[in-house]
Amino acid sequence: MPQHDNRYQVRKAAVDSILQDRSESPENCATAFAPVNIALCKYWGKRDPILNLPVTSSLSVSLPPLGSTTEIRIGADRDDVTLNDEPITPQSAFASRVVDFLDLFRTARDLRFSVRTTNTVPTAAGLASSASGFAALTLALDRLFGWDLPPKQLSILARLGSGSASRSVARGFVEWHAGSATHGADSFAEALACTWPDLRVGVIDVDFGRKSQSSREAMQRTVDTSALYHSWAQKVADDLAEIRSALHAHDFERLGAAAESNALGMHATMLGARPPILYWLPGTVKAIHRVHQMREDGINVYLTIDAGPNVKILFTKNDMSAVQAAFPGLTVIAPFDPECPTLPTDSD
Amino acid sequence: MPQHDNRYQVRKAAVDSILQDRSESPENCATAFAPVNIALCKYWGKRDPILNLPVTSSLSVSLPPLGSTTEIRIGADRDDVTLNDEPITPQSAFASRVVDFLDLFRTARDLRFSVRTTNTVPTAAGLASSASGFAALTLALDRLFGWDLPPKQLSILARLGSGSASRSVARGFVEWHAGSATHGADSFAEALACTWPDLRVGVIDVDFGRKSQSSREAMQRTVDTSALYHSWAQKVADDLAEIRSALHAHDFERLGAAAESNALGMHATMLGARPPILYWLPGTVKAIHRVHQMREDGINVYLTIDAGPNVKILFTKNDMSAVQAAFPGLTVIAPFDPECPTLPTDSD
Repeated sequence: MPQHDNRYQVRKAAVDSILQDRSESPENCATAFAPVNIALCKYWGKRDPILNLPVTSSLSVSLPPLGSTTEIRIGADRDDVTLNDEPITPQSAFASRVVDFLDLFRTARDLRFSVRTTNTVPTAAGLASSASGFAALTLALDRLFGWDLPPKQLSILARLGSGSASRSVARGFVEWHAGSATHGADSFAEALACTWPDLRVGVIDVDFGRKSQSSREAMQRTVDTSALYHSWAQKVADDLAEIRSALHAHDFERLGAAAESNALGMHATMLGARPPILYWLPGTVKAIHRVHQMREDGINVYLTIDAGPNVKILFTKNDMSAVQAAFPGLTVIAPFDPECPTLPTDSD
Repeated sequence: MPQHDNRYQVRKAAVDSILQDRSESPENCATAFAPVNIALCKYWGKRDPILNLPVTSSLSVSLPPLGSTTEIRIGADRDDVTLNDEPITPQSAFASRVVDFLDLFRTARDLRFSVRTTNTVPTAAGLASSASGFAALTLALDRLFGWDLPPKQLSILARLGSGSASRSVARGFVEWHAGSATHGADSFAEALACTWPDLRVGVIDVDFGRKSQSSREAMQRTVDTSALYHSWAQKVADDLAEIRSALHAHDFERLGAAAESNALGMHATMLGARPPILYWLPGTVKAIHRVHQMREDGINVYLTIDAGPNVKILFTKNDMSAVQAAFPGLTVIAPFDPECPTLPTDSD
């Protein structure tokens, strides 16, 4: 049910400015896939929590085939949300976040949506399934209504669902420009003209259970209370320039060192919050030390950690066997490798 | 053997300015005890590594009966150092650091010292045995030569051996004023006029093995490379004011929250170094989460961590049984409790 409060009005205005000159030719049903993404330069902190406008720019790599496939259908009596074949109770935080997003797109007051999402990543494992979920939902809405929006506009719409979803509408390396406008029309993500076929991303399963703390609240508390936040925002600008430059130079050591430093810096900034925020578990620290030991042993492997306990590692194809020997059972994604398994249900 | 390099000259000048008008009546042998101290507001970073002048002020509480008892004797043919009844090879880093310090106090070119130190804390467990060691050595030298120096001067001399040793010459709550002079004559520690009989400090044994990284190198790398260091130095000023105020108000929650935030902020700042520095082990994170869970359960316990993996907790007497139930085998120190066991070999 649309809530005509200030939050709704501000978000609706952002949507209307994008859709104003779009014709609509709605289908009954549409499906889309969006990949999860992992930030090499992290997004941590909003300057506007209503429009999900970030304090800093960020840069990610999309990780198909991991992601979300979302089917959206109109014509039901009430909104309903299904996640991984389980109906979600409308009172849940997840369902109300989806319905809150759908409120922005009702072309008639009584239009209701059925949303079915299937994730190929464990929900809330720190692999940003909310990013791929809201990106897939945005892409599905674009098809459902026949808007045929350009990538920039799709990124802005996805951002209203989840900040990092702005990056999951694109593939490859993706930079989300923080922008500076209050309405957010300059805060969108776009793919970089750069690929890296030998890049590999490994996901170390420290704990794929649900994380204890939502990243939304943790992010806000960090911005509001961490004495280290000011330095963090400055650091991001430096890290971003270094990562962009390392990508274009295909300098893996510089890329890895900068991405690792950025991730640890984000967790460091959270430790500075009052009260402190610590997503790490004992296995997180064990994995960090193991990665550092591997580097001392001459293997070029670097780590990154999102708002959860799991550690992701970056390496290149030629170190595949050494890395798999060190981390048996590692999930490995090759974001640019055409030999990579095709996406499970990508209709692109 | 005195090395007449710049480092020696600078340190020797600092010593001479203190000892210039002291008469000497040397004994053959003298003994002194100094306690370890734990910083509630940490010292991390030098503005002058030769004189051990810190970037920021810091504040600690001394933890007798844990500490070092040092006997110094003159008349031998060569310097020798014994630690916990084990002779230390002169080539070791530890022995050369002690000899380097003794060089500053040779009243005759061929004067040699025998130093015997016994620690009641595991060496290098992050409980600053170098602080108590150099403080005890300084106090023993003061007795050996009969200088009878006031506390401020003893603190300055001890600082030349190890920065945090400046705080271990005093008891109770001790503030080390960073000072601003290049020669360091205003960088000394002094006891605060404040006690807290109910305060308890517990030491959780995560790993009492030797730590992997010397704090001297880690500190310098943090100052030189951490993008978070600037914010850290600012944070220390705020934390120090809050801790001082909480001490005088006997507000345990404010004291604990500020001390914990300061310690986590120090480790956060190290994570920002390039390459990153992580002293934590899996057990460190386990202990942090347990302390946080106890607070959620209504027990006022806070943590602090020095440059090592071990976690120290702060609580008050009335929570003793709850804390001991949560951490069986915990070493507990009552820094101000007269019921506390007397010091093992304190000759005060």
